[in-house]
Amino acid sequence: MSPAKTDDQKSSIDVWQLSEEKFEVEENLLRETLFSLGNGHLGLRGAHEERFRGFSNNTNDHTFINGFYESSLIHYTETAYGMAKEHQFMLNVPNGKCITFAADKENFDLFKGTINHYDRKFDFQKGSLLRKVDWTSEAGKQFVVKSKRVVSFTRPDMFALEYEIKSVNFTGIITLRSALDGRVEDEESGEPRYGPAVGAVQGVNLILLEKKQTEDFSALLHQTKRSKLSLASAQENSLYLGNAKLIEKDSASSSESVEQVFKIEVKAGDTIRLTKFVCYITSRDYPEAELLDRAKSTLAAARKSGFAILCEEQESYLNEFWKRADIEIGGNDLVQQGLRFNQFHLLQSVGRDGHTSIAAKGLTGEGYGGHYFWDAESYALPFFLYSKPEIARKMLEYRYSCLGESRKRAREMSHPKGALFAWRTIGGEECSAYYPAGTAQYHIIADITYAIKHYFEATEDEEFLVKYGAEIVLDTARIWMDIGHYEPRKNNAFCIDMVTGPDEYTVLVDNNFYTNAMAQMHLKFAAELAKKLKASSPTDFERIKDTIELTDDEPEKWLKAAEKMYLPFDEQLAIHPQDDTFLSKKKWDLKATPPQLFPLPLHHHYLVIYRYQVCKQADTVLATFLLGDKFTMKEKKQDYDYYETITTHDSSLSHCTYSIMASEVGYLDKAYHYFTQSVRMDLDNVHGSSSYGVHIAAMGGTWMAVINGFAGMRAYGGKLQFAPYMPTAWDSYKFKLSFKGQLLEIAVGKEEVKYTLIEGDALTFNHHKIEVKLKGANASQTFPTKAQELASTASTKRKDDA
Amino acid sequence: MSPAKTDDQKSSIDVWQLSEEKFEVEENLLRETLFSLGNGHLGLRGAHEERFRGFSNNTNDHTFINGFYESSLIHYTETAYGMAKEHQFMLNVPNGKCITFAADKENFDLFKGTINHYDRKFDFQKGSLLRKVDWTSEAGKQFVVKSKRVVSFTRPDMFALEYEIKSVNFTGIITLRSALDGRVEDEESGEPRYGPAVGAVQGVNLILLEKKQTEDFSALLHQTKRSKLSLASAQENSLYLGNAKLIEKDSASSSESVEQVFKIEVKAGDTIRLTKFVCYITSRDYPEAELLDRAKSTLAAARKSGFAILCEEQESYLNEFWKRADIEIGGNDLVQQGLRFNQFHLLQSVGRDGHTSIAAKGLTGEGYGGHYFWDAESYALPFFLYSKPEIARKMLEYRYSCLGESRKRAREMSHPKGALFAWRTIGGEECSAYYPAGTAQYHIIADITYAIKHYFEATEDEEFLVKYGAEIVLDTARIWMDIGHYEPRKNNAFCIDMVTGPDEYTVLVDNNFYTNAMAQMHLKFAAELAKKLKASSPTDFERIKDTIELTDDEPEKWLKAAEKMYLPFDEQLAIHPQDDTFLSKKKWDLKATPPQLFPLPLHHHYLVIYRYQVCKQADTVLATFLLGDKFTMKEKKQDYDYYETITTHDSSLSHCTYSIMASEVGYLDKAYHYFTQSVRMDLDNVHGSSSYGVHIAAMGGTWMAVINGFAGMRAYGGKLQFAPYMPTAWDSYKFKLSFKGQLLEIAVGKEEVKYTLIEGDALTFNHHKIEVKLKGANASQTFPTKAQELASTASTKRKDDA
Repeated sequence: MSPAKTDDQKSSIDVWQLSEEKFEVEENLLRETLFSLGNGHLGLRGAHEERFRGFSNNTNDHTFINGFYESSLIHYTETAYGMAKEHQFMLNVPNGKCITFAADKENFDLFKGTINHYDRKFDFQKGSLLRKVDWTSEAGKQFVVKSKRVVSFTRPDMFALEYEIKSVNFTGIITLRSALDGRVEDEESGEPRYGPAVGAVQGVNLILLEKKQTEDFSALLHQTKRSKLSLASAQENSLYLGNAKLIEKDSASSSESVEQVFKIEVKAGDTIRLTKFVCYITSRDYPEAELLDRAKSTLAAARKSGFAILCEEQESYLNEFWKRADIEIGGNDLVQQGLRFNQFHLLQSVGRDGHTSIAAKGLTGEGYGGHYFWDAESYALPFFLYSKPEIARKMLEYRYSCLGESRKRAREMSHPKGALFAWRTIGGEECSAYYPAGTAQYHIIADITYAIKHYFEATEDEEFLVKYGAEIVLDTARIWMDIGHYEPRKNNAFCIDMVTGPDEYTVLVDNNFYTNAMAQMHLKFAAELAKKLKASSPTDFERIKDTIELTDDEPEKWLKAAEKMYLPFDEQLAIHPQDDTFLSKKKWDLKATPPQLFPLPLHHHYLVIYRYQVCKQADTVLATFLLGDKFTMKEKKQDYDYYETITTHDSSLSHCTYSIMASEVGYLDKAYHYFTQSVRMDLDNVHGSSSYGVHIAAMGGTWMAVINGFAGMRAYGGKLQFAPYMPTAWDSYKFKLSFKGQLLEIAVGKEEVKYTLIEGDALTFNHHKIEVKLKGANASQTFPTKAQELASTASTKRKDDA
Repeated sequence: MSPAKTDDQKSSIDVWQLSEEKFEVEENLLRETLFSLGNGHLGLRGAHEERFRGFSNNTNDHTFINGFYESSLIHYTETAYGMAKEHQFMLNVPNGKCITFAADKENFDLFKGTINHYDRKFDFQKGSLLRKVDWTSEAGKQFVVKSKRVVSFTRPDMFALEYEIKSVNFTGIITLRSALDGRVEDEESGEPRYGPAVGAVQGVNLILLEKKQTEDFSALLHQTKRSKLSLASAQENSLYLGNAKLIEKDSASSSESVEQVFKIEVKAGDTIRLTKFVCYITSRDYPEAELLDRAKSTLAAARKSGFAILCEEQESYLNEFWKRADIEIGGNDLVQQGLRFNQFHLLQSVGRDGHTSIAAKGLTGEGYGGHYFWDAESYALPFFLYSKPEIARKMLEYRYSCLGESRKRAREMSHPKGALFAWRTIGGEECSAYYPAGTAQYHIIADITYAIKHYFEATEDEEFLVKYGAEIVLDTARIWMDIGHYEPRKNNAFCIDMVTGPDEYTVLVDNNFYTNAMAQMHLKFAAELAKKLKASSPTDFERIKDTIELTDDEPEKWLKAAEKMYLPFDEQLAIHPQDDTFLSKKKWDLKATPPQLFPLPLHHHYLVIYRYQVCKQADTVLATFLLGDKFTMKEKKQDYDYYETITTHDSSLSHCTYSIMASEVGYLDKAYHYFTQSVRMDLDNVHGSSSYGVHIAAMGGTWMAVINGFAGMRAYGGKLQFAPYMPTAWDSYKFKLSFKGQLLEIAVGKEEVKYTLIEGDALTFNHHKIEVKLKGANASQTFPTKAQELASTASTKRKDDA
């Protein structure tokens, strides 16, 4: 693990890109992750076009399609009823990047000869990966090779590549090969954290059904063995020759790959350029019979437009994105770069077709099997909700698409009514092979409801609510009624038994505070929603009622359960206990635990960890953030103080939450410290695991640490409020939020905070406790940045919160 | 499932044997279990010699060697540190029973032709399985075929078979084949209860290394693939011809089998007889290089003795056994037969070589992988302890042999000191793939200690204690100190966190009452033992201290923890709560649950079951039995009343415990009812699962239900006490107990109870509250059987206990 760099090396950082100046084998696996390009549908790890053999184990040259998976049966040596049956894992699909060339049989190979110059630039602003290499072969042939790669945001099924070779001193024949390589296999990882490739079936999972090879168009049609999903992958190549001369053009084809081969006569000084378009069309999006035709027409259209137009489209899409999503930091380029890198990766990873979402490692690695978890709604969705709300909606539509499977799962779990979302899944089926830290995390239904509630409050998108959201909220609310009960021993409070909260270092508990508090929100919102819809959209409400067989008395029961919800509070410590038995366990001595024994589960059996008061991540503290209007500042601070001392932050979801709450309760140094652990988590490989993919939740959480943390944004009850302060390490920060169809800019400087209504007519919100009303385009209001808010010692409490 | 038969059909039952009068295909699988013969080392399911093909799936013709296993890696889709790595499973070994014959090419086959007479007798008194068949072939050839099978108790490595053919009307050539069939495979079961054949590797697990075939001796040498255990199996045949004439004698051999073939000319009326000796020698007992030679000498010795001598040895061994172990029931033959059947199977199943013990299904099936559980010490050992204490000692020596593996396991579980026994194992390694109902059952170390304590008290075997027992008790005691802590919130009581008690329908709890109470016993006994040994055997004590690196302060700490042990008691209900959170869960509505939904885990996810107050088996109630001197009668009754209503008895370990405690608290009808559920559990296939093997724990528990239940025997502090009463369904019962080298007979009649000292000089014990002292051989004392003890209504409480 490396420390995050956020306070030094402020100069020489390009805040709009990540660059690499040296060809370093041992860094390659990490760089492949960082340089991954994607568009939410496709994802290409940042491997070299040439598949240099010298990397051996330092490469993982994989290509992914969001939601395109194979499945396998989960095997249990001791099985039991209702255990998740099926593992799903995101597949490595044919590699369309492949380009190699040889000059008179001497291959272009960075592991041989001399590298005169090397650089790569991963450009967040333009959405491309560029490489430039000046190289001399062992025999003395010199070439300048440039490539540019774009995974198109505007054409989700495809990517494009431009590959330029300038011969500095070579005259002779260049053999240029461009392949679509179907010899792809999947790997199983033995590493629990990246795991669940652990459930992947090692080896070849795609069966070749058909191969097409015409002069310009090559395609492969594959099908998965068990999930029976089909995929057409295809490529087209076009060549700019300049003064060079095409001698021969041929198609080669091995058993699993297609390739186009060009023999070109070049003279010293000549430049040739190959443009390549590659597309992937799957049966999750289109009828199987159409796949190859659609591949052909997609590539034909791209070719007609040309590479330059694709690049323009890409830049224009990203211009629009950054205009609304960018956070500008004054005076800290490392943070600036980290934030943009994170937001760019979030944008690249998120599905937006209504049947995919955002995986734990996005489209940059197969860790966690490419599964969607609660992280999607709880950590990634807020960024989209306030920056690109149409994507947030699509993420929630994805959950709607899983309702059928979730109802089946609820029956399997003996719930007579309702829908229970899978803890981890791609297609909707529960894929959690370790249920204590999987299926038992019932809070996922409340997390999704929370996202729906906030989506609706921030967008007022009635159509979504009526068409998708309400059905999810109402049908999942019923699950609480089945797993909870009114407990005479607890004053007839509504108790929820046998669940696991977000902190997976304690499992199968009664009355997990987070779960109960979120269930309370869920039940209350569901009851109110039923009432609201009955009045406002009676026809739709009847339709939903019919669909889920909702009886008239259910909403009342939900309301009662919400009112009587048991929210444990310990008088002695004046904190919320994490669950019924948490406080009577020993505390783990974190200070006495050497760094190499973290994360704990890699060195201790779960039983050992579960025996202690020790948290993997924010649990109760997360509840005090998400449901912040339900708790006093004193409660928040007491909970923070207690749980911080026993939290390992072994989860990448932890730092950002602690940062936000440290901001709220006034521990400004800590807030910044946790923020730094998160903002460059992947760039600096803080957890040592970024080689296997980025940490999507931390990326989203970093955005939250700025917006909800430093700027103190909350949206309780559909009204924005801010309590901005300035981290001492910065000079200023500025960001925009989309809210109810309007666009608000918040610029925080050392002297003043300025709110500007960039789009929209009128917006009312709070600055600290002051209500601000902006009317008319570009209306703005300015407040002084309070001096005391610059103070930042661990014990400083912000005055206005006292 | 069938109801147990215990009150009808009293006549026509042979109380010394189980017989079968009809050839019934659909009963075959069950009969194979019931008719299994074994000697604690070998086990042969009661299949027919001829391996008739007509049985198809209704046979499971397996042969087992106690402790002879293959291993496989346990695969977890989501794995974690410290999870059990290896599954071990008892193997199906070469089948040496095989005999077939043909008369002029017409095979003897009960699925063809006509059965004129058929019977089998499974004889508990003589230890043999006899079959007699009178059969006419389709072509009209009639034969009377008799076989007798003996698995020798006196020669543990072998069994013998006599196979007699009388030709009634056939004159011609009989081809008689006797094979040792090495084409054995293992099966995987999908049925969780018989399970862990679930972890078995399907298919061939024995690799043939060598085959020997001389005129009289045929042998196979196998090795397992992964556990690398070797096995020599061998057979010898000898033929009695009478008037018949041997035409040809040949050895045949297929790739995996050896066979001797005899062609015999017979005339109508002739009788021929094949005697067969088969032995199995494994590398768990002898050096690998000696296996084949030992097989040869074992068979040579047997042949020299001859079949008749073997049968005599067998009868004599069993005579001695029954003399000390028999329970004689007056007036209920079904119960009498059931008890003897159970005790015979216990004797047949238990290992007695110091490196094996008794598996959950004995040597009658591969269910539960042939693993040893706590059942061995807690349910089977008491029978041996008081009937054949030398076997109880060997069972405990087996645990000693596992100390090395148990120490390794303790380190894996982060315990810096001490030994942690595997929840389920053959070789000592933890094989539990579902740790919440496996590894988490830490009570196993206390259960084994309890057995050692009682073994020592009942035998005063100092040598065992010093050589084996003390080291186990002391080294395992330390585990409690690591998983427990003094909890300020519980008045600084010693609390034990994150364990599972015997009731597997609640897991991973804090302060499981059973576990805490047993741990208290364990810690106290360990501390006392250390003190005692230090004084009485200082040299040995120093040796043990050195071996386990015991520090001087440890025993004091154990004593303090025992004194401060937290034993939860609920004032409101006046019961011991099963654990810290048990009483605040919903109660499962057992009355509303239809019979077909039991056992619950076959129809509900564990999470559902864990959410309720519902018990698979006696848990707290078991503690009130085992540690009965620690609780008042009122406490016992209150606990019984509470837990009985929420117990499903899905475990075969439950009925006997409830029967014992029903006897103690005075629910005599219930005591007898639970006893009936247990005494013929396999004979009547009460749980529907006996086809896959007998229920060893229930067999031992049945003995306890009589001795500890009806006769009220306890041995608190090494002193016997009795409180006998007479179940109304019986006229009398009589049994003997070995205690401190003496033999006491207890005869209970309707009028009087008579105690007789059969062996030994003097014994002091209690009858009810009266101290009885018997001095001199055959000294006896008689007490009236109190009239009120015959009362038996569900609510009757025995007066002397009030």
